[in-house]
Amino acid sequence: MSRWPLPEAMQLALAQARAGESAGEVPIGAVVIKDGTVIAAAHNAPRALHDPTAHAEVLAIRAAAMALGNERLDGCELWVTLEPCAMCAGAISHARIARLYYAAADPKGGAVDHGARVFEHEQCLHAPEVYSGMGEAEAGALLKAFFAARR
Amino acid sequence: MSRWPLPEAMQLALAQARAGESAGEVPIGAVVIKDGTVIAAAHNAPRALHDPTAHAEVLAIRAAAMALGNERLDGCELWVTLEPCAMCAGAISHARIARLYYAAADPKGGAVDHGARVFEHEQCLHAPEVYSGMGEAEAGALLKAFFAARR
Repeated sequence: MSRWPLPEAMQLALAQARAGESAGEVPIGAVVIKDGTVIAAAHNAPRALHDPTAHAEVLAIRAAAMALGNERLDGCELWVTLEPCAMCAGAISHARIARLYYAAADPKGGAVDHGARVFEHEQCLHAPEVYSGMGEAEAGALLKAFFAARR
Repeated sequence: MSRWPLPEAMQLALAQARAGESAGEVPIGAVVIKDGTVIAAAHNAPRALHDPTAHAEVLAIRAAAMALGNERLDGCELWVTLEPCAMCAGAISHARIARLYYAAADPKGGAVDHGARVFEHEQCLHAPEVYSGMGEAEAGALLKAFFAARR
């Protein structure tokens, strides 16, 4: 639906979202990129994992930190299909993610540009650069179809 | 330092915090209680686990959800020695924790009664009852000694 090809990282995040949908989870995907290389990719999986913290961002961050052997992901980018919630924004801050790219805004649950605006308080010790909107049509369509099918 | 005995759950959270200190982690502990029974206990462990999300609250919530086989911890209490950050407050909300008891306030990093005040926005779909202050002297002394020793 975008008029120009999406960056590969966001295409991968959308592919993760679709994989999540196939698994019966809310279709949200995330990837962590370092120096142009994908080091982790994940989709929402709280139902399958019985883990309320298993949002795509948290899973991708945990996998990336494990892969790098370091709790800090300095210089890494996180690409995700939906605006992060407060939990995920906090995780992004703790992980020292350098740049956050999210596709669709989430006025009902987001905490980056809505609600708690986690990165905007002095209690937030690290805030990433934030870029939004790339892939928002694709990401939003996935979510809309998912919830429409379950109503 | 308290004039009355602390509730057992907070004593257990403080014991977890001390265990974290022994392991070289920031001394913060948490326990999840359901119907008067401890179903999970954890201390901060981001260094050992190479996991920036491994705060005591997140680890205790994940363990409790795994133990119950359910991503939702309806009716559960979370007892923690420090005011939760934005990430942990978000996790508490997603887990549907019924009651949160935290010992010491954290003006520099807390997101319950400071900063992002995660539970106070309409984007927060579930907010626990919050009780604070029990054990704050003990919890604060642990943290103060930990950081003083590292300066």
